[in-house]
Amino acid sequence: MPAIANKILLIVLDGGSDRPVNGTTPLASADKPGLDALANGGINGIMDTVDIGVRPGSDVSHLALLGYDPYKYYTGRGPFEAAGVGIDVKKGDVAFRCDFATVEDGTVKDRRAGRIQDTDALAAAISEKVKVPGVDIIFKRSTGHRAALVLRGKGLSPDITDTDPHRDGLRLKECRATADTPEAKHTAGVVNSISEQAMGVLGDHPLNVDRKKQRLLPANAILLRGAGGVPEMPDFYGKYDMKGAVIASAGLIIGVGKLCGMECLTVGEMGAGLSGATERAKVEKAIAALGTHDFVLVNIKGADEAGHDGDFAKKKKFFEEMDPAFQSLLHLQRVLVIVTADHSTPVLVKRHTADPVPIVIHGPGVRIDDVSRFNELIAYQGGLHRLKGLDVMPIALDLLDKEEKYGA
Amino acid sequence: MPAIANKILLIVLDGGSDRPVNGTTPLASADKPGLDALANGGINGIMDTVDIGVRPGSDVSHLALLGYDPYKYYTGRGPFEAAGVGIDVKKGDVAFRCDFATVEDGTVKDRRAGRIQDTDALAAAISEKVKVPGVDIIFKRSTGHRAALVLRGKGLSPDITDTDPHRDGLRLKECRATADTPEAKHTAGVVNSISEQAMGVLGDHPLNVDRKKQRLLPANAILLRGAGGVPEMPDFYGKYDMKGAVIASAGLIIGVGKLCGMECLTVGEMGAGLSGATERAKVEKAIAALGTHDFVLVNIKGADEAGHDGDFAKKKKFFEEMDPAFQSLLHLQRVLVIVTADHSTPVLVKRHTADPVPIVIHGPGVRIDDVSRFNELIAYQGGLHRLKGLDVMPIALDLLDKEEKYGA
Repeated sequence: MPAIANKILLIVLDGGSDRPVNGTTPLASADKPGLDALANGGINGIMDTVDIGVRPGSDVSHLALLGYDPYKYYTGRGPFEAAGVGIDVKKGDVAFRCDFATVEDGTVKDRRAGRIQDTDALAAAISEKVKVPGVDIIFKRSTGHRAALVLRGKGLSPDITDTDPHRDGLRLKECRATADTPEAKHTAGVVNSISEQAMGVLGDHPLNVDRKKQRLLPANAILLRGAGGVPEMPDFYGKYDMKGAVIASAGLIIGVGKLCGMECLTVGEMGAGLSGATERAKVEKAIAALGTHDFVLVNIKGADEAGHDGDFAKKKKFFEEMDPAFQSLLHLQRVLVIVTADHSTPVLVKRHTADPVPIVIHGPGVRIDDVSRFNELIAYQGGLHRLKGLDVMPIALDLLDKEEKYGA
Repeated sequence: MPAIANKILLIVLDGGSDRPVNGTTPLASADKPGLDALANGGINGIMDTVDIGVRPGSDVSHLALLGYDPYKYYTGRGPFEAAGVGIDVKKGDVAFRCDFATVEDGTVKDRRAGRIQDTDALAAAISEKVKVPGVDIIFKRSTGHRAALVLRGKGLSPDITDTDPHRDGLRLKECRATADTPEAKHTAGVVNSISEQAMGVLGDHPLNVDRKKQRLLPANAILLRGAGGVPEMPDFYGKYDMKGAVIASAGLIIGVGKLCGMECLTVGEMGAGLSGATERAKVEKAIAALGTHDFVLVNIKGADEAGHDGDFAKKKKFFEEMDPAFQSLLHLQRVLVIVTADHSTPVLVKRHTADPVPIVIHGPGVRIDDVSRFNELIAYQGGLHRLKGLDVMPIALDLLDKEEKYGA
C-alpha cells in the first residue's frame, strides 16, 4: 500500500445508524463482509455530526462533514434545495423548498398532490404567468411533487414564515414577517402574492382538469417552506485545493455539494429508486470519478427511508444489497475511504435522532484498531473515539499530508 | 422493554467519585450488585461535570447536569442557598449563605457555634430587630448552624466581599466593595450594619445566655458569604416541557432545583441523616414521584461526607447500604435512569477534585456497551466516552424523542 493517499472518497449512509432492537441493529445484524472488512482494516469511532445531543437534518450534517460549520453557513433548507434542482442561486437571493399540493377551500388536503410525478407543464405555467413587480421569480420542479422557488431582487428578507402548514388537513398559511423590518414585510407580501397567483394559474390548468377526470388529486397549489437567504460559502477547491464532486439522488444533498462549489455527477437512473442496485451504482460512479476528482462525496439513500418506515428487515437487507460496493473499495490505491452516516434514523423512532453514528477511515496511513465490524454498537471501541462532523476533513487532509503546520 | 422512555430519573451520588487507593476506590471495591447491574445493562462513560480540570461545587455541577450553563447562571451560592431554605428570591435580590458563629473579641472562635441545632429564636430575633432603611432584610434559618440572608431594595450590588474569614481563629471580616460603584459601596455598608446589629441582637439573647450557662458556645454572630445577585433562569418546564422535581437534603441543591422552577419533594426524615436508609428513602420517593412528574433529580448525600472525612471504609459501606435502592430501578418501564456523581471527593484529598465522574444511562433505546460495573476506574471504556455535564440533558431528551431537529 502506498504511504500516503491523495484522494478521498466519503460515503454517507443516510440515516444508516440506529438504536438497538432486542440488542441488535440493522447494521449490526446485516451480513456485510465488505463494510466489515473496511472496519477491520481501518480506524473506527463514533461521531456526533453536529454536536452531542443535536438531531441533525441531512443538510446540516453534510455541511459539517464537508468542513462547513452549519451554525455559520446553514440559513435554512431553501437555498440548498434550490441549488440542488439546478437553480444558480446567488448571495442575496431568498430561496424556498416548494411542494405541489392539493388545496380545497383553503385547506391542504394532500401535501404531495397525490404523489404527482410529471409537473413540467405546471412548473412552466408558474414560471410564465406568476409575476411580482421588481422581483425575479425563479421556479423549478424537482422529482415528484417537489420544487424550489427563488426570489431575486432588492429589499428581500428570509425572515418570514412558511405557507406550508406541515400537515394535511390544516389551512394553507399566510406568510408573515418574523422580523419587524420593511424587507421582511415586503417579502411576506411577495410570497402571499405568489401563493395566490399560483393557485389561479394551477387551478384550471389542463393538466389538473385532466387529473380530476382521472379521479387523481389536482396539484392546484404550491406550499413554501424553509425560506433562507443564500449563504456565501467558501469554494471547496479554494478551501482544500481539491477538486470535489458530489453523487447523490436527494436534491438537498446535491444542493449542499453545489453551494460548496462541488461538481454534481449524476448516475443514469440514480434518482429513480433507492434499491441496493441503484445505490451500488453511485459507488461505482464514485470510483470512476476519482480518476478526475480529488474528493468524492457519495450520499447513499435507502437506509434512511427504511428507518422512517420503521422497517428493520428492509434496512438490514439494504445494507446486504449494498455490500458488494464496499468490497470493491478494499483494494483502492492511494484513496482514503471514509464511511459514516449523517445521523441515526432508528426504526423504533422513525425519525432522525442524535445518537452518534459509526465512522471508519480506511486507507494509507491510518492506525488500524481492534474494531472488526462496522456498526453503531461496537464503533465506540475504535481508535477515533468520539468525533464531531467538523473533525472529519481536518483528519482526512492530515492523512493526505495536506494540512498546514500551526507553529514552528 | 418499550421502545422509548417518557420519564427521566437522574440520581447524583454527591462526591461519590474518587481516586484510587492501593489500586481501588470505594465505588470499585463496594459490593453493589444493583448499581453494577445498571452499568451492565446501560451505556457508560466518564464526565467532566463542568469542564476538564475544573473542580466543581455541587451547585454548579447540578446546574450543568440540569442543562443550565453555570458560567451563565451561577452568580454565587447565596441565591441557591436562599431559595433552598424557602425564601422566594427575586431577580435583583442579593442573597448570602450565612452561618451562626461564635465570635470573641472580634475573632471567630467557631464558625458553627458549637454545632448549634435549634436557631429558631435567634433567627426570629434577627428578623425582628435588624433594620436598614430602604432595604428589606429577609433572614431564614436552615438546618443546624446554617441560614440564609436576602437583601431586597434599590441600588444593591453583589460585588462585595464575605464577612466570613473562612477559618476559625481569624478576625471577623469587614465587608468591602469589590467594584468601584456606589451600589457596591452602599451594599457593603448595609452588610456591615447587619453584621454589627446581629451581634448586638444575639449577644445577650436569652438562648445564648442559657448556652453559656451550659458551657456551650454562644451563637453570637452571623457570618456572611457567597453574595450573589439572583439570576433569571429559564423555567425547567418551559425549557423541556417536563414537570421536574428535586429530592435532596442539602439546601443548596434544593435551591438549584427551585431556581430552575422544579418542585421540591421532601422525604420524612430526609434532612436528618445521611445513612444508607435515609438515602434509599429518597430513591423510593423518587420512584413514586415519577407517577406525577416527568423528571426527578435525586441528590444522594453520604459519600461526599465520607470523602471529606477521608474515610474509605465509610464511603464504601455507604454504597453497599444504598445498593438495594438501585436494584429497585432495574425493572422500571419507560424510565431513563441516569446515575452519576457531581464531582469527585477523593478520600486522600478530602475535598472536591476535577477527576471525571462515572455516568451510566440505563433504559429504552440506549446502546448497551461492554462495561459491566459502575466505578470511576472502568467507566472510561463505555460507549459514551467522555461527556460534559451540559451534554446530559440533550442526550436524555434525544432518547425520549423530545429533541427538535436542526436542519431538514
